[in-house]
Amino acid sequence: MTRSNRARNGPPWRGQLYDILFETDIHVGARVFDILLILTIIASVLVVMLDSVESIEARHGFALHVLEWVFTVLFTVEYAARLASVRSKRRYALSFFGIVDLLSIIPTYLSLILYDTRFLVVIRVLRVLRVFRVLKLVRFLGEARVLGRALAASRFRVIVFLITVATLVVILGSFMYLIEGPAAGFTSIPVAVYWAVVTLTTVGFGDITPVTAPGQFLAAIIMLLGYGLIAVPTGIVSVELAHARGLVRVRGRVCSGCRSGGHDEDARFCKTCGGTVVDVGGE
Amino acid sequence: MTRSNRARNGPPWRGQLYDILFETDIHVGARVFDILLILTIIASVLVVMLDSVESIEARHGFALHVLEWVFTVLFTVEYAARLASVRSKRRYALSFFGIVDLLSIIPTYLSLILYDTRFLVVIRVLRVLRVFRVLKLVRFLGEARVLGRALAASRFRVIVFLITVATLVVILGSFMYLIEGPAAGFTSIPVAVYWAVVTLTTVGFGDITPVTAPGQFLAAIIMLLGYGLIAVPTGIVSVELAHARGLVRVRGRVCSGCRSGGHDEDARFCKTCGGTVVDVGGE
Amino acid sequence: MTRSNRARNGPPWRGQLYDILFETDIHVGARVFDILLILTIIASVLVVMLDSVESIEARHGFALHVLEWVFTVLFTVEYAARLASVRSKRRYALSFFGIVDLLSIIPTYLSLILYDTRFLVVIRVLRVLRVFRVLKLVRFLGEARVLGRALAASRFRVIVFLITVATLVVILGSFMYLIEGPAAGFTSIPVAVYWAVVTLTTVGFGDITPVTAPGQFLAAIIMLLGYGLIAVPTGIVSVELAHARGLVRVRGRVCSGCRSGGHDEDARFCKTCGGTVVDVGGE
Amino acid sequence: MTRSNRARNGPPWRGQLYDILFETDIHVGARVFDILLILTIIASVLVVMLDSVESIEARHGFALHVLEWVFTVLFTVEYAARLASVRSKRRYALSFFGIVDLLSIIPTYLSLILYDTRFLVVIRVLRVLRVFRVLKLVRFLGEARVLGRALAASRFRVIVFLITVATLVVILGSFMYLIEGPAAGFTSIPVAVYWAVVTLTTVGFGDITPVTAPGQFLAAIIMLLGYGLIAVPTGIVSVELAHARGLVRVRGRVCSGCRSGGHDEDARFCKTCGGTVVDVGGE
Repeated sequence: MTRSNRARNGPPWRGQLYDILFETDIHVGARVFDILLILTIIASVLVVMLDSVESIEARHGFALHVLEWVFTVLFTVEYAARLASVRSKRRYALSFFGIVDLLSIIPTYLSLILYDTRFLVVIRVLRVLRVFRVLKLVRFLGEARVLGRALAASRFRVIVFLITVATLVVILGSFMYLIEGPAAGFTSIPVAVYWAVVTLTTVGFGDITPVTAPGQFLAAIIMLLGYGLIAVPTGIVSVELAHARGLVRVRGRVCSGCRSGGHDEDARFCKTCGGTVVDVGGE
Repeated sequence: MTRSNRARNGPPWRGQLYDILFETDIHVGARVFDILLILTIIASVLVVMLDSVESIEARHGFALHVLEWVFTVLFTVEYAARLASVRSKRRYALSFFGIVDLLSIIPTYLSLILYDTRFLVVIRVLRVLRVFRVLKLVRFLGEARVLGRALAASRFRVIVFLITVATLVVILGSFMYLIEGPAAGFTSIPVAVYWAVVTLTTVGFGDITPVTAPGQFLAAIIMLLGYGLIAVPTGIVSVELAHARGLVRVRGRVCSGCRSGGHDEDARFCKTCGGTVVDVGGE
Repeated sequence: MTRSNRARNGPPWRGQLYDILFETDIHVGARVFDILLILTIIASVLVVMLDSVESIEARHGFALHVLEWVFTVLFTVEYAARLASVRSKRRYALSFFGIVDLLSIIPTYLSLILYDTRFLVVIRVLRVLRVFRVLKLVRFLGEARVLGRALAASRFRVIVFLITVATLVVILGSFMYLIEGPAAGFTSIPVAVYWAVVTLTTVGFGDITPVTAPGQFLAAIIMLLGYGLIAVPTGIVSVELAHARGLVRVRGRVCSGCRSGGHDEDARFCKTCGGTVVDVGGE
Repeated sequence: MTRSNRARNGPPWRGQLYDILFETDIHVGARVFDILLILTIIASVLVVMLDSVESIEARHGFALHVLEWVFTVLFTVEYAARLASVRSKRRYALSFFGIVDLLSIIPTYLSLILYDTRFLVVIRVLRVLRVFRVLKLVRFLGEARVLGRALAASRFRVIVFLITVATLVVILGSFMYLIEGPAAGFTSIPVAVYWAVVTLTTVGFGDITPVTAPGQFLAAIIMLLGYGLIAVPTGIVSVELAHARGLVRVRGRVCSGCRSGGHDEDARFCKTCGGTVVDVGGE
């Protein structure tokens, strides 16, 4: 968004404002501004978090509410300035950070208009979204791109893995429901599936635990499955990360579809997915 | 199964039916059909799951039962159509998805014939198998093959790993039974072995926990063992996945049995397993 | 031990007995014998495990005790036969499996001589060692060697990792003891260190949990540390396993001590550990 | 610090003392001294740990206190000797181990001067720091450097990962607070964030668990996220460790900033972070 969205033929103040608000890489003032902004965001998130602690709210409630409003006004001014400085208002407003910037100020204003207590709880759900501002921190670190690229490259395999895990927990959870039953806390299949997720991911809260011998046997199998299955996403990301770092290179004849290797010299189509086999690297 | 099982010299409707039911890759109608089928399968699984929630069953029980029957009839028609469209009925009926397709309709019909309430619980075990249908989702993603290949290549090492883990939990569980005893919840060796699995896989329910100092010491060792051992399946799958992706290649002299490398130039047999050493890749 | 310990100039029955008991690889009778032996070992372990379940012991106690004695006599005969068939009795008796074979029969005989009930509990600790027999299963799988080699190559790094983890849990556990104190279940520093192991290894029993805000903050840091630290053994084993599989090769100038690479062309000593830098592979 | 800080033109006893205290690599006496020192440190840590167990303190309290003072005096003499033997006192005193050496003797002396019981608890926080001495163990193992180098190389990616995790737990914890509320134990946003850390890291204490259906659904998503996210640090460390071991080499054109590869032959700037693309290795 940054460079191409710059106001080239607008008034001079607009260009300067744009530099400070968006050009973190080349403008010193922008860097100082962004660091101050991040500290302010963290402070405002802390204020919201502390406000939810009953004992703190009782004592410092007023001060926290005042701070909350100060932060909201500051963020509103910032949002307006960003909107004013860009050439295409629409493009910024609909960008990821444009939406996050707006969502992080709306809830406080909404709490003014709507008095109904029951409704306020719903509003606070949006209010929580203010923490998305912290995501701006990621802007500073180019390294995030390398991670992102590795994760993007492995997205299909991760989806296959998640579907397999989802199928597993539904089947295994249902079996546990039939074996253990409501007496042991497995009150319904959805609850039993929740328990299967808790167990397969090796979280293991212990709020629901099997008590019968066959239930404990199946639970042990689910645990060993979860213990072993964790190797799959780890292996996927390791390989893609090694690839993204440029440490290893696909060499020889590789499928353009699933990127698998090991094809015969005269193979024209991939034996795995049927895609075209192309020659990569070569060295 | 797909292409080779196609009815080549049957009536024309059979070929069209076959294309829609099985040829997801080349036929647009088949793709639409399969997406609708998956949505129907997910819906039917949700119906079964919701039916097990007591509060929902009390209010919407009838509607859920009707839906259940609608889905079962639809799946029965689909099963009959699949059976009719393939040339070799037997081959389809005995294939993995043939069995799953049949198992996903039988339990509902069985619940009609058998009235005895006590028996119904046993029937529902089979009813749960309907969720196996979700496995059909995997058909869509060619990537699953790459994962499958990596897992298949590492199966021997995974078995060795599982035997080692099984031996460990039996020994460590028995020791915990002797150290802690029934007072701390370790009521028998099988229960103590179940606890050892819970601990080694880092699940840690907390339903049974050591209370004596030596018990907590041994438990800490089991945990560190489990924390470190997880590296083994992860390492195995990472290496095989890198191999399956074609990122790395076995080079030089490699054993045809255990595929280990690092053999001397003049070695004819593998120093690890005694298999023949062959020359791979070379580059 | 196997081939070199064979009785070459003893009576002919000794050679045949040796072949059946030890030569799994080349003798069909030995393979049949070993499979039967493993099934017997698993059965005897199951008998010991079931005997510890109170409800089963009350009903089938006598049958289990008889089976226990049958297995013990069989294993005693087997031990005597192994001792008779080898040339060097001492060498077998002091080998790993020689000791395990003996330890798996002693506890049952000891339970005869010592009547004192209090003492019997101590004897059963040894009795549990019978499960070590299961380790014989590993003999069948040559793949275990590859895993073993990878683990042996990474032993120094694993030790450094374990010392770091041990230091961490002692320090962090002590801090938690000071922050939370006996009221929250952190009754002493050893108990707090046990809790730190439970938390760092992501087991999380929940028998002891922090209740104060600073305690929960430190606990969160310990968890994130444990969540990240698991990458270290996983990384170590992955790299060594890739090396053991012969997939990657150390190329160029490498330290003969710590095997690290990346040395300058004219470096004679390792910049990391001071070992001699040698030229490996070269390709 | 070691070699360059040696006293070259001081009295002869100083050089000998320096050799024993610091030159572990070349002096046999120094090695014996260091092993004795480590055993003494471990013993002193055990004394502090046992002293915190109430039942042991009641019976052996006096003996433990005496031992505590013996160890403190020994460590004080050692600290003085180290200070005397080095040329630059300041340099040693401000080094990592210089500070640790001092911190490991101060708390015992402080407990003499300050009688106030309430204050003593605060003093014991420092007293715990004695365990930092154990860190000296790391000095013995050159392998630690390889691990350290790999971790240092991956520090930027680890920071990005931690910021992402921190953002995630704040957002997800806040949502859980709004969904579950104080009734289920989610008494405030900080507590809910603590719970999110417990769940995402797959620790799962079970002291706070969701009870509503949407809460359990979101919890299941957090668990699967944590189960998958662990792949990221593991992948990062695996790749860096493979690099540190010299097993793989960055080849071809690589960015000098983010070290990513895969750039076009004529690319002068990195397509990911804009850094300069340089030619590495080449082979």
